[in-house]
Formats: sequence, structure tokens, C-alpha cells
Amino acid sequence: MARIAVVAGDGIGPEVVAQARKVIDAVLPGVDATEYDLGAARWHRTGEVLPDSVLTELAGHDAILLGAVGDPTVPPGVLERGLLLKLRFAFDQYVNLRPSRLWPGVPGPLASVKPGEVDLVVVREGTEGLYAGAGGALHRGTPAEVATEESLNTRHGVERVIRDAFARATRRERRKVTLVHKTNVLTHAGSLWARAFEAVAAEHPDVATEYQHVDAAAMFLVTQPQRYDVVVTDNLFGDILTDIAAAVTGGIGLAASGSINPEGAYPSMFEPVHGSAPDIAGRGVADPVAAVLSAALLLDQLGHADAAARVTAAVGVELAGRTPGAALRTEEVGDRLAGYATA
Amino acid sequence: MARIAVVAGDGIGPEVVAQARKVIDAVLPGVDATEYDLGAARWHRTGEVLPDSVLTELAGHDAILLGAVGDPTVPPGVLERGLLLKLRFAFDQYVNLRPSRLWPGVPGPLASVKPGEVDLVVVREGTEGLYAGAGGALHRGTPAEVATEESLNTRHGVERVIRDAFARATRRERRKVTLVHKTNVLTHAGSLWARAFEAVAAEHPDVATEYQHVDAAAMFLVTQPQRYDVVVTDNLFGDILTDIAAAVTGGIGLAASGSINPEGAYPSMFEPVHGSAPDIAGRGVADPVAAVLSAALLLDQLGHADAAARVTAAVGVELAGRTPGAALRTEEVGDRLAGYATA
Ligand SMILES: CC(C)[C@H](C(=O)O)[C@@H](O)C(=O)O
Ligand SMILES: CC(C)[C@H](C(=O)O)[C@@H](O)C(=O)O
Repeated sequence: MARIAVVAGDGIGPEVVAQARKVIDAVLPGVDATEYDLGAARWHRTGEVLPDSVLTELAGHDAILLGAVGDPTVPPGVLERGLLLKLRFAFDQYVNLRPSRLWPGVPGPLASVKPGEVDLVVVREGTEGLYAGAGGALHRGTPAEVATEESLNTRHGVERVIRDAFARATRRERRKVTLVHKTNVLTHAGSLWARAFEAVAAEHPDVATEYQHVDAAAMFLVTQPQRYDVVVTDNLFGDILTDIAAAVTGGIGLAASGSINPEGAYPSMFEPVHGSAPDIAGRGVADPVAAVLSAALLLDQLGHADAAARVTAAVGVELAGRTPGAALRTEEVGDRLAGYATA
Repeated sequence: MARIAVVAGDGIGPEVVAQARKVIDAVLPGVDATEYDLGAARWHRTGEVLPDSVLTELAGHDAILLGAVGDPTVPPGVLERGLLLKLRFAFDQYVNLRPSRLWPGVPGPLASVKPGEVDLVVVREGTEGLYAGAGGALHRGTPAEVATEESLNTRHGVERVIRDAFARATRRERRKVTLVHKTNVLTHAGSLWARAFEAVAAEHPDVATEYQHVDAAAMFLVTQPQRYDVVVTDNLFGDILTDIAAAVTGGIGLAASGSINPEGAYPSMFEPVHGSAPDIAGRGVADPVAAVLSAALLLDQLGHADAAARVTAAVGVELAGRTPGAALRTEEVGDRLAGYATA
């Protein structure tokens, strides 16, 4: 039976994670879940972000389900570098998976896009690029200060995530992969990405391919999101593009993500894209859909494609039945989703 | 009298630049314009991108008006690095100015945003960051390949563009500046930007300020573009955000830009954000509005605020009178704009 580590975290994290666990328990009874106390609250209390002993314990699980960590009083970078990115790098979670669908029933912001028309997934590289932490500063705090950030890209790291994107495309209906980069300016990294993409594409004659500069892709995600199927891109571009994709499909309140080590050598981690939302925490009004969709990605990654599909379908029923603007109760949504998923 | 260098360029470049010149001549008769043949066509013919002698000649002008350069057969980077970026760096054009307005009469893609509600300007840094060309590759073409791109940021470069953004904000109604960066991941450069921003903000107690991570800003540009007044950000983030801003205000077909050296030590350059659009080139159907709005930025930079305002107002009349989807003729639009601007 699957062993899951649960990091409920801060703010609305515990509220939405409780619903995700409820739904997992409904479709796959007997999952063994262990809670870990990490995030802003622990940092405030103990000064600890991610003790080595906890990292070792987490490594012994099949997957991690995370709610949200952070609050506005934690300095920028502490939890990001010390916890979220640390886990992505330590567990070699090189596929950062972010699906975006415009669900029937969800009012998207775009006038010309109809529900059901957008169904894309961004495969964002998770262990390289500008997220490598390579950078520094000289003469800090003086008029002579210089600060650098370095994007590191390896053929190893680039090729494996592109392979994953093509593998996902072959399992989808449209079978199309769009590479997004900025080859006309970032010529060294861009050339590496473009050549690796071409090589993997040559092995998949059944998959259609295209290339777009990141600025053009950002624009087309707004004007024609329907055109995308699978998008593969680097760590920072993926960070930006997935928030645009979330925005055009109803907001980050519905966006799920997985930080995946496809080989299963390390646990993968699944979390809603939204944050801890301290402004609405504790009131039982947070939408748990993004957490529940993240749980579906978790189930799929652990080989329970059937259970995953039932959870995803349950979300479809829930969203189709919503009245735009109507209030929701976190627990009630969780109960309904568990019900739909097992009906 | 102002001396302008004109680089009409490729594709629709010459067609739209002809209209921009027509409008300039109408509002400011007697401008001295010299044409320079640069772009894909010249490169194909001679292998030259930007000869040193031409760079020296360009330096002797008050401003440069550029149409568009490039065609799909030029390898990525050749004209970007060799011409556009070369000019931005050689002429120290550190303010890359990109206004976005949702003009009455223009159908924007967002259901909830009404014409007139969006009026923002992105002040993008133009001479640093990932555009510095600092990067390289080892073991190219082998499985061991590594490629790097380095973002270089100096207090000098960051502070001066932030100062420009605040100066622009004080001349606008809402007086608000949003800093966009990714301080939680790019901690070195992020910290430099954040500290420089705070220092300049302290000198402008009358200007409201906010900070957003680039992923959040990309999202809010789609869901709430009305919230922005002046946005200041680094070179690459600015590249992406300005295309989103263009998309939500009717497309890059209407987007103008200026690469500005505010001190006037070197010529500033003005160009539409759109490309050379080879698919519609030569047919007289390209919309010259972005080129004409770029000409208005040029006039403003050269101290002809009044002429600039008349051109901008003319665009407002033109766009308000359009029927969405109706065909247009480049020349006729230019004639109308020249007429409105001098009426
Ligand atoms: C919190 C931050 C480190 C993170 C990222 O930049 O990857 C977040 O924005 C995300 O997209 O998961
Ligand atoms: C053509 C390219 C070098 C350029 C950039 O990236 O700055 C373009 O996208 C722009 O925004 O002006």
C-alpha cells in the first residue's frame, strides 16, 4: 500500500489538504499517510526549515502531498530555497507538471474561448536553469554592487524532460509538443534546448512539434490558448507560463502541480499552485479543487490511473454544477468530490 | 531641426514606416530623415548586419525610427544580437518603454475589461540582465554538454531605470510603480532590485509602490490589468510582460516601443513591437498604428510633447472609428492619421 508523506503547511494548506486526503481515502482506501510539520509556522517556532532527518524520512515515502507553505512575515527565499526548491533538487524532481483545462462551468477571463476548448499541460524543467542557485554579489550595498544569477543547463537535464514531454504527448489525443525558449537571445542555452528537442522529436515522427519564443508564447496563451497541447520549457519560463495558463483557465485556485521524479528513485511531490492565502485561512472557505486535482496527479504517478481518472471526473462534475460567484465551504466541496469519485 | 535615421527593414517594415514618416511630417514639417538599409535583406545580400561605419553614422542622429527586421530564413540571434541588441547596448538605451492602452473601439480578449480601463506602461531595463550576452557552452554537441546564460545586474544600471520609472509615474495620474522580479528565487539580483527600488521610492513619497513576483504579475496582467500604472522590471521579465500587456490590449499589432537613452547622449530608437510579418508583406494591409504610436514616442522624447500628443490623439480617433474585423489599407490609415493629427 502506498506510503504518503503529508505536508499540510500554513494558512489554507491544512484545510485543502484535508479534503485531498478525504478524496484519496475514498478512491483508494488504506493509503498510509504520515504528517510532517514544515513551513512558516515551524520556522517561526524553531528556526528550522527542513532538518536533514526529515529529508531522510521523506525520502522513504512513495509521494509527498503538500498544501501550501509561507506567510508574509517570512523573508523571501527562506522557504522557497530551503524547502520547496530543496525538495525538488534533492529528490531530482525534474518534471514539473502543470495541466490547465478550462472546465465547463468555470468562467474564464477570455471572451472568445469556450469551456472545454483549452486542455494543455506544461512540462516545466524542475532541477536546472536559473533555479540552480548559481549566483552572487560583489560590493553589496554600495554604488558598485553587481549581482549575478546564472542559468545552468545540461544536455542530461534538458533531454530527459523533453523525453518526458514527448512521452506524455503520445498518450494524448492531439500529440503535439511546443518547445518554448528564447533562442534568439539566450543563444547558448537556447541552442542546447533546440538541438535536444530536435533529436527527441526525430524519434517521435507521430508527434507534431513547434517552437515559440517565450514572449510570443506568453502572448498566444492569452489570445489562442486552444493551440497548445504539451508545452515543454525551462524552469523559469515554465514558472511564468503556467501562471498565465492558470489565469486563462479560471485562476490559480484551480491549478494543480506535480514535481515528479518519473523513475521513482525519489518521491514525487504534489501541491496546488496557489499559496497559503492567509487572508482567508481558518474560515473554511478555501476551494480545495486544486489540492484534489494535485491528489489525482499523485494517484496517477503511483500507478493508480483509474482512481486518478475518477477524481478528475469528480472535479468535472463539481465545477459543472457551480454557480459563478456563489460561496463555497471547503469541507462540503470535499464531501461532494469524495461522493462523485465513488459514485 | 531633428535629424532622424530611418531603418525601414524587412517585410511590412517599409510599409508601416512610410506611414509613420507621413504622420511625423504632418505634425512636425522639416524633419531631416536619412534611410539606412539594414536587416535580413542586407544580410542575405552582403553578409553584413551592422557595419561599424553605419553604427557611427547612426550615432550622429537624434533618434532612430525602425520598422521591423528579420525573416524566417535568418538564423536565430543574427539580427537580434547583431543589430537590435547591439544598438540598445551601444547607444546605452537603458529604458525600454512599452505603453499599453486598451483603446476605445479595440476589442480586447478579456471579457471583464472595458475599453479605457487599461493604461499602463512597462519600463523595461534595456542594457543588463540575461541580455548581456554573458554565457557559454562546454562539450557542445556531446551528452556532457553544459550551457550557461548569466544575468548581470549592477546597482548603476538598476537604479537608473528605476529612477526613470518613478519620474514617469510622477507625470501620470495614478502615480503608482510596481516592481516585478522574482526575489524569492533570484535572491542576489532580486535583493539588488528590491533595495534600489526602496531607495528610490523613499525619495518619492507621493508615488504609491508595490512589489510582485513575475509569475504573479503575468497572472494579474490577464485577470486585472487595470491595476497597473507604471511597471518597472528587468530585461527578460520585461520582454515577456510587455507581450502579455500587448495581448490583453488588442495585440502586438498596436504595441509601440522605445529604446531610450534618457540623457540624449546617444540616439534613442523607436519601433513597433510586431515583427516583419512576411506573410502579409507587400500587400498594403499591415496596420501602421504601432509604427505611428512609436513615432509619437519618438516625438515626445525629442521634446515635441505637443506633436506627440496630437499623433496619439489621432490614433484614438482612428481606432474608435474602426469596425472590428474590417479590412484596412496601410496607406489609407496613414492618410487618415496624418489628417486627424493636423485637424
Ligand atoms: C514558490 C516558488 C519557489 C515557486 C517557483 O518559482 O517555482 C512557485 O512560484 C511555483 O511555481 O511553484
Ligand atoms: C527580437 C528580440 C531580441 C527582442 C527582445 O527580446 O527584446 C524582442 O522580443 C523585443 O521585445 O523587442
